[in-house]
Amino acid sequence: MDQGTELRIELAHGNGGRLMRELIESVFARHLGNDLLDVTSDSARVPIPAGQDVFVTTDGFIVNPLEFPGGDIGSLAVHGTVNDLSVAGATPLYLTLNAFIEEGLEIARLDRLVSSLARAAKGCGVRVVAGDTKVVVRGEGGGLYLATTGIGVREPGRSLGLDQVREGDVLLVSGPVGDHGTAVMLAREEFGLRGDVRSDSASVFPLAQALLPFAGLRFMRDPTRGGLASVANELVRASGMGVRLAEARVPVREPVRSVCEMLGYDPYYLACEGRLVAVVEAGQAEAALAALRGAPGGEHAQSIGEITARPACVVLETELGGERILEELEDDPLPRIC
Amino acid sequence: MDQGTELRIELAHGNGGRLMRELIESVFARHLGNDLLDVTSDSARVPIPAGQDVFVTTDGFIVNPLEFPGGDIGSLAVHGTVNDLSVAGATPLYLTLNAFIEEGLEIARLDRLVSSLARAAKGCGVRVVAGDTKVVVRGEGGGLYLATTGIGVREPGRSLGLDQVREGDVLLVSGPVGDHGTAVMLAREEFGLRGDVRSDSASVFPLAQALLPFAGLRFMRDPTRGGLASVANELVRASGMGVRLAEARVPVREPVRSVCEMLGYDPYYLACEGRLVAVVEAGQAEAALAALRGAPGGEHAQSIGEITARPACVVLETELGGERILEELEDDPLPRIC
Repeated sequence: MDQGTELRIELAHGNGGRLMRELIESVFARHLGNDLLDVTSDSARVPIPAGQDVFVTTDGFIVNPLEFPGGDIGSLAVHGTVNDLSVAGATPLYLTLNAFIEEGLEIARLDRLVSSLARAAKGCGVRVVAGDTKVVVRGEGGGLYLATTGIGVREPGRSLGLDQVREGDVLLVSGPVGDHGTAVMLAREEFGLRGDVRSDSASVFPLAQALLPFAGLRFMRDPTRGGLASVANELVRASGMGVRLAEARVPVREPVRSVCEMLGYDPYYLACEGRLVAVVEAGQAEAALAALRGAPGGEHAQSIGEITARPACVVLETELGGERILEELEDDPLPRIC
Repeated sequence: MDQGTELRIELAHGNGGRLMRELIESVFARHLGNDLLDVTSDSARVPIPAGQDVFVTTDGFIVNPLEFPGGDIGSLAVHGTVNDLSVAGATPLYLTLNAFIEEGLEIARLDRLVSSLARAAKGCGVRVVAGDTKVVVRGEGGGLYLATTGIGVREPGRSLGLDQVREGDVLLVSGPVGDHGTAVMLAREEFGLRGDVRSDSASVFPLAQALLPFAGLRFMRDPTRGGLASVANELVRASGMGVRLAEARVPVREPVRSVCEMLGYDPYYLACEGRLVAVVEAGQAEAALAALRGAPGGEHAQSIGEITARPACVVLETELGGERILEELEDDPLPRIC
């Protein structure tokens, strides 16, 4: 297509008038349409199953580039929010969507991203029930920022959380860490690198559901910004106990390891977008690991460490038998990763 | 304060590590804290009263400047979403909050805006139950963009909507139009104007509740982007009928009128953020208007026009006895107004 004649977002697409209505109809409603979404209304009535606990979560997305191997900002905006509900043990039902679109974004590209978002939502069984678009002046955005809010439900009576964690509990991870962060990094031209790493962006709902039947399940979290090391540090802060991880057992793909070594990154701090970290009572850890491995996306799950009484920090036992402290993240090695 | 030493947002405030946690604790949680908000959790469980219909809405905010007479992006982000629920006849209960913060924003300013948001939420009786912050690279944001999603409830069995509107119905407006758009415009230095206009940013919940008892209430809407003229055009498109407005009866404040005349804007297209437009069955219009005038913020309510069989467009009867068509908005006279 001739670059010069490509249709692009103009400020008038955000004015509340004809162009905005047409954009919403031709891009957003066309891909996201469902029986609950009414683009002529300012709000949506959503059925909530009786007797269920209702969970709400929200997430913003500023990933650069907007498209990368294994996903794009559209699928990411679904998975990120679906995953926050999933790790609470909830079943995601509804999403709302905010799009901050920069003047000049190609409409064909926006269409592709919204189409991807719609596919991901369908795959996760969630419906987008309300949305809003804003257009920001050229130079005051990063192409496209998204925010999604998710609503889900859970059977009442279940306790999951950082406060449930006990000494001796075991940490499980559902698959290799650092894929998403590495894939996005490699997709940035500034690094001048090419590699065969795809984002792990996916729903962790099936993984979370596989663990939910275990009474010894204490806590689940998806390690996004800040990666596995940040989830481990959260555990330390909340419990006052320690986390001991075995480097030999934490799965990291070979190309991720190479890229990290080359650029000086630590894969334990890089974002995942389709992994789940769970803390399980030791007696059920083996069975829980088997359940995780039997769920889609959990084939490479591993038991990676445990909760210790002390020291109150995250200790990584290196493969050479040494120890390394994984401190709370200080600077930001990679902005706009999710 | 010395500009050079003012604390500002850094990229590391978005990294998922220590600085992000401290920012969330010291700014967001400090102002917004409530019994449902748990900043160490990725989602919140929210009680929903049994037997009520649940409504969801979402809105993004990109206003420039971030602070203006009568409000700021924080209060706006509450009122905008509360109002979308209110005009559905719902009682707003919960908000989620997304903040896209540009690197370099003064932390004192962010604190002031979040504090304002918290005050507005308290004033509207809503709790912020979940939030997320992202930091974008300097030059890729407009200081601060916000998105809020609202959840509210309504007694079942009520029908309100564009499809309820009938020929002969009467249009009411709760107060003068165009104040918000004008106030924001005047607050921009580029216009080189000063004027005594304050944004009307406020909750319309009390106004909506005052009208809800009327069985003849057909439809409510808050005229934001695109203003009163755009709500009227929506009515035309949805109903296939016409809207006839009487210029002499549409309240416009004198300074708003002057500024619009000077700059060539039409106040009917300028955003309000605390007004309500209602369509009411003619027989109940007088009583509904009285109810509106008796509600806080509705003192200057007016009956401004009616639904006509034809022509299928918005006709403004001018004060001189002529007619002017208020077309659907085409260009965007004022980007980043809300």
